[in-house]
Amino acid sequence: MSGEDIDGKAVAATIRGELKERVSSLRSPPGLAVILVGSRRDSQTYVRMKKKACEEVGIQSFGFDYPDTVTEDELLQKIAELNSDDKVHGILVQLPLPKHINEDSIIEAVHPTKDVDGLHPRNNAALCSTGTHVGAEKVDWADLSSVPFHIPCTPQGCIELLDRSGVELKGKNAVVIGRSNLVGLPVAMLLMHRDATVTIVHSKTTDAPGVVGRADVVVAAVGRAEMVKKEWIKEGAVVIDVGINSVDDASAKRGYRLVGDVDYAGCKEVASKITPVPGGVGPMTIAMLLRNTVNSCVRSGATKGE
Amino acid sequence: MSGEDIDGKAVAATIRGELKERVSSLRSPPGLAVILVGSRRDSQTYVRMKKKACEEVGIQSFGFDYPDTVTEDELLQKIAELNSDDKVHGILVQLPLPKHINEDSIIEAVHPTKDVDGLHPRNNAALCSTGTHVGAEKVDWADLSSVPFHIPCTPQGCIELLDRSGVELKGKNAVVIGRSNLVGLPVAMLLMHRDATVTIVHSKTTDAPGVVGRADVVVAAVGRAEMVKKEWIKEGAVVIDVGINSVDDASAKRGYRLVGDVDYAGCKEVASKITPVPGGVGPMTIAMLLRNTVNSCVRSGATKGE
Ligand SMILES: NC(=O)C1=CN([C@@H]2O[C@H](COP(=O)(O)OP(=O)(O)OC[C@H]3O[C@@H](n4cnc5c(N)ncnc54)[C@H](OP(=O)(O)O)[C@@H]3O)[C@@H](O)[C@H]2O)C=CC1
Ligand SMILES: NC(=O)C1=CN([C@@H]2O[C@H](COP(=O)(O)OP(=O)(O)OC[C@H]3O[C@@H](n4cnc5c(N)ncnc54)[C@H](OP(=O)(O)O)[C@@H]3O)[C@@H](O)[C@H]2O)C=CC1
Repeated sequence: MSGEDIDGKAVAATIRGELKERVSSLRSPPGLAVILVGSRRDSQTYVRMKKKACEEVGIQSFGFDYPDTVTEDELLQKIAELNSDDKVHGILVQLPLPKHINEDSIIEAVHPTKDVDGLHPRNNAALCSTGTHVGAEKVDWADLSSVPFHIPCTPQGCIELLDRSGVELKGKNAVVIGRSNLVGLPVAMLLMHRDATVTIVHSKTTDAPGVVGRADVVVAAVGRAEMVKKEWIKEGAVVIDVGINSVDDASAKRGYRLVGDVDYAGCKEVASKITPVPGGVGPMTIAMLLRNTVNSCVRSGATKGE
Repeated sequence: MSGEDIDGKAVAATIRGELKERVSSLRSPPGLAVILVGSRRDSQTYVRMKKKACEEVGIQSFGFDYPDTVTEDELLQKIAELNSDDKVHGILVQLPLPKHINEDSIIEAVHPTKDVDGLHPRNNAALCSTGTHVGAEKVDWADLSSVPFHIPCTPQGCIELLDRSGVELKGKNAVVIGRSNLVGLPVAMLLMHRDATVTIVHSKTTDAPGVVGRADVVVAAVGRAEMVKKEWIKEGAVVIDVGINSVDDASAKRGYRLVGDVDYAGCKEVASKITPVPGGVGPMTIAMLLRNTVNSCVRSGATKGE
């Protein structure tokens, strides 16, 4: 058996196309404010990619760049301003922030309805709840794009990939490797909301290969290059690899190449479906950020009469 | 093998004793406000038990009883008043509320620091996070009584019972049956924070007996009388039974008796430790409510100079 690739690049492009169409029917464009602090190369790259993706689908992006020396108060003030700016439907603060700034305070300052990264405690509490409603609004987990609060982008992207690949989750055994607030834990919650029986594996798990071996669906979000081996995977399982790790490779132009948390070549031999790295989960993250921003705009009512 | 009973009644009494001592060293007593709406028999009983337990440990309880016809606004106003009352360190609204009142609004109105039931989204978000801090305060999951926010009482009681029975959780396979916001999901989070490998089982799980059969620790919170059978339990596992179900029993004085979600007699033959029903988890819920209230008082600083 050789598993089918789940083509995240193609799925993300399709979603961007759908969003573009949706945006074109709105009275005024959705707006995303992007706050970048300092001169980290990787952060600059991510911000550039996000702004470019906004442009592609017709979201207006507003960039706010600050030096490393910016104070927490200055950022809080800017966020307060953006919270009450009707042209701004999403506020993204590129993480990590310099050490002298409390990330939690910044995250909590963003109004939950504009928290398109889904990191605000309100949004986390809504995700980590089996209640049927958030406030007066019903939650329909079957359609994540309809959920009346913001779900973190990478986890949302994982489920969207599964959905668009026709993978049924209800009643399936799902194992998530990793329990970070950014990826592992929210993915586990989403799989649970989809009625999978979820097991969360982490660094203190004693028999990870055994646990993973019983999974119909495996999501790896660990940060360890090619940790998940062929022998771990049950024949026919679906494998979602969130990991992005750079490993030395003298034969590569830049001296390194990117690999996931899964030994792709090996696992592909037993899996029924598998995401490659790069080109799997990666492109979905930005697509979900765009979707959250468009949803936020529609929900704000700024687009009544669309 | 015949499993040892975990005696929740005795453990709860010990904890009340510890709290009493702690309270006696405070400058002024902790205060718990208890809001009761309507005339449900069970709610009245719970409220009475809670007030009585407060008295025993030296917590001042303030009762506010309302008829079924009370408006949401009246309750919200009372809660606002209690939020800013320095003598009140915990506010408990006995659930369920009549249908015309939005429970979520009421729960969210209670200030998170006084939300001794641990139901406010802020407290839920803190529980469902693997961050090391809440605000500036470090979270030490090893000692739940030190955690700087409120953890729901029944789930907290389950872990406390395990702790006081010398059950090691790190690296163990734990299975929680049930995923309610009140019990199942928070228990799963707590077990995860204690570094168990956690699986959440629910009504859509296809092979519950198989999944439970791999568990070193089983927590049942389902609401189905004696659903968990001896054959499900791995030899030597620890079984925590949260369920409280009344079943008809002509031989009993009141015509019914209370049983858990676990077939106690059968499972006791294979488990190493097991909680009886009644007398297991039940008494722990109120003990944890008292502890949350005392902690809230100490954290409020009202007791500086203790
Ligand atoms: N595609 C995308 O857009 C994104 C990709 N990523 C990538 O996903 C990966 C995970 O990211 P993130 O969640 O932020 O990472 P974190 O470092 O925050 O979390 C890693 C998790 O993996 C667990 N872990 C570590 N070692 C092991 C082990 N040997 N066995 C089992 N579990 C282990 C840790 O457990 P413990 O809690 O016990 O320490 C922790 O929960 C990274 O490679 C990252 O680059 C991240 C975000 C977006
Ligand atoms: N000791 C104490 O102080 C307390 C005791 N309790 C008792 O604990 C029990 C659970 O309470 P609570 O969590 O509030 O109940 P809920 O009804 O809110 O939740 C029950 C959970 O059990 C799951 N479930 C139902 N049937 C099955 C099944 N056949 N197999 C597997 N899972 C199933 C449900 O799954 P799904 O989500 O798919 O519907 C749901 O997640 C009750 O007996 C209650 O009386 C509760 C609170 C305090």
